[in-house]
Order: sequence, then C-alpha cells, then structure tokens
Amino acid sequence: MNLAKQGNTKVSDIVIRRLPKYHRYLTDLLDKGVDRISSQELSGLTGFTASQIRQDLNNFGGFGQQGYGYNVKALRMEISKILGIDQVYTAVVVGAGRLGSVISTYEGFKESGFKIMAMFDKNEEKIGKVKDNLEIYDIDDLEDYVRDHQIDVGIITVPKEGSQKIADTFVKAGIKGIWNFAPTDLVVPDHVVLESVRLNDSLLTLSYYLSMDKDD
Amino acid sequence: MNLAKQGNTKVSDIVIRRLPKYHRYLTDLLDKGVDRISSQELSGLTGFTASQIRQDLNNFGGFGQQGYGYNVKALRMEISKILGIDQVYTAVVVGAGRLGSVISTYEGFKESGFKIMAMFDKNEEKIGKVKDNLEIYDIDDLEDYVRDHQIDVGIITVPKEGSQKIADTFVKAGIKGIWNFAPTDLVVPDHVVLESVRLNDSLLTLSYYLSMDKDD
Repeated sequence: MNLAKQGNTKVSDIVIRRLPKYHRYLTDLLDKGVDRISSQELSGLTGFTASQIRQDLNNFGGFGQQGYGYNVKALRMEISKILGIDQVYTAVVVGAGRLGSVISTYEGFKESGFKIMAMFDKNEEKIGKVKDNLEIYDIDDLEDYVRDHQIDVGIITVPKEGSQKIADTFVKAGIKGIWNFAPTDLVVPDHVVLESVRLNDSLLTLSYYLSMDKDD
Repeated sequence: MNLAKQGNTKVSDIVIRRLPKYHRYLTDLLDKGVDRISSQELSGLTGFTASQIRQDLNNFGGFGQQGYGYNVKALRMEISKILGIDQVYTAVVVGAGRLGSVISTYEGFKESGFKIMAMFDKNEEKIGKVKDNLEIYDIDDLEDYVRDHQIDVGIITVPKEGSQKIADTFVKAGIKGIWNFAPTDLVVPDHVVLESVRLNDSLLTLSYYLSMDKDD
C-alpha cells in the first residue's frame, strides 16, 4: 500500500513513516515540560528540514501558527489521532517462541492501543499452557478464534517456512492487518494492511556500510 | 549516512536498502535450483520494475547479459560481496533481557558473518552467568572489553533511557557500527555506522493504515 487516504488528500507512505518520529519527539518534549516548539527547533531535533516539517504537517491540516510555532500537546494529540493511537485493536501472536514472547510483552503495545488476546503454536508441549499471562492455543484453532473474536491484527513470529500459510489463514478469517516478523514477503489481498519488520534486511544494511568503511 | 561509496560511484541509501531483498529472492531461487533469471522475472518476484532492477544492479557493475538474463549464483555472490557478507564482524549485545536473548540467538547472524562474542548487563544477578552459550559481563567492563577485543559492532537492546550512554561508551572504545533496538535516535559520530530497528515506528505505521481502513 503506497498511498493512504486522509480526508480528500492522498498522503505518501514516506510522509506516514515520518509521523512516528514526530510523535516520539513530541512525547519527549511533553515529558520535559516543553509547551511549544517552532519548525526550526523541530528540525534541529529530528534532522528533517523546517520546510519539510511544515509541509509534512500541512498534509493533515495546518497546526502551526506564524510566530508562535506548534503547541506540543495539541500537535502530539493530532498526530496520535492520525496514527490511530486513540483506537483499540485486538491482536493475536502466532509462534510462542522467544520472539513471540518478546512481542507479546512489548511495552509499546499499551501506548499504541493494541491489546494482545492470545498466542498460538503448533507445538503440543506449549498448547494449553499460559505464557506472559496469555493462553497458548492450538494453531489449528486460529481461524475460528480470529473469526469468533473479530481479531483486528495477526502477528506472525514463526520462521519463513510456515508464514504464508498462517497469513492465508488470517486473511480467510477476516483479519484487518498483519504485523510480520518472518523474513519473507507475504502475499495478502489489498484490503489487508501488511507491515513487516525485517531484522535480516537491517542486518545486511549494517553489514554493507561496515564493509564500505573497511574499504576506506 | 545517506551515501555509500562503491568504487568511484555514489550509491543512494534507497538502492542499498533494496539489495537485501534481491539477496533474499536469489537465495530462494538458488535453493529451488533455478540457474538464471531475467530482469522481467525478477520484477515479477520482487515487485520492482524490470528497468529499476537493471538500473539498481548497474550501480555495481553490469552483471546481466542481453538475451540471457542474470546467472543466479553469480549475481547472488556479487550482491553478497557488496553487502559485505563474506566478511566476519564480531559483536557484543548489551542487555541480557528477553530481546537481548532473541537477538543473541538470531539465526541470521550466521549467514551474514556476524559473530556474537559476549553479553553485558548491569543486573548483578545476571552478571557472571552464561545465557545462550554467551557469558554475561558487567556493563562497567564494556569499554575495556570492546577495546581489548577490537569488537566491530555493538548491539543495544536496553530501554531508551540508558541507550545513549551505552552508545557513547561504544564510540569511546572504538566501535565501527551500532545495531540499535532502543526506541530513540542515538547520536553517534559520522564514522560510526548506525542502523536502527524501530518496532514502535513500525507498529504506529500499522496503526495508521488500520485506522484509515476503518474510516473507509
């Protein structure tokens, strides 16, 4: 998905991906008791240019005032709304391994409005147990559970091999979005939101820049 | 770092970030016994246009042959070299918690040439113990360890609060690169490679697209 709708305007994915950074800095500023901030000061913090910041935020309605700058609290709340943080999403985690455990107990979920309801695994030794305060169910029951509980988001923390099949099950059960940690490009219909975290791509990028430095 | 040097040409960060994806698909093709592939076929797999693929790969010297396409094995090996996968990097993990544990045992390290040497933590109950076949040392010994063992990469898996201080210690000890999982923008000198994995930014992006769908 490369374009998102906001009112009548289309906002590019690149702008969307800058919003969490704005949100992060505004949260820090609020914690420090800062009331207002200019686009120049935001530029110093974020590394984006002041004109880019004004342009980005204009996409969502002009929040800044000439000569005053941005009200930190109001701007943060607007961006929270845009990011959908004020809404609650239910989610399940497939894969009750170490990564599944890290994700299930991830602090970020609370402040982002995500609520993890259950975990799923195919390992019979894990099924029926409770881990991180979550019940682990049989992967064979995934489709029914997601449909019956109208789960919004499926989180995939299994290896590459089983990941597409799980994605297919999620789609069949009517999932709205998938947060994928498997190192592969899952195929899902356009109406399903797919967001992937690729540890390996990040590691290879690091490797690339390290090897460039070695050549210097 | 936005530009990387390769011979006399400058290659943009955007192209660099596509290389791991090429590498991933070429590995899959090789596993399936596919010998050669055209830019059109690669386009069908990756979703990049054929002309973009030819342009991308031209950045690193023309590997393709008119009417033949690309030799999968040779192209994969070239990209491996470009990504620096043929080199070995030593690394240490700071933070012996759950995330540190997931990262320490991460399968991707082996094939990417990274070797984890030790873990560090400030928790006295963890210090001196062995976890995932790695000794856990006192965080106070980090600087000496990195300097004495000429460690290439520091991996940060602690919360936001302590992360900049650890980055500073790494830099002081002569680290070449940092793989950061703390949800903050670390400040490091230009000669240190910084690569960050931001779970929270990814989650907020997912949240954004979910909330857009709800409005439809």
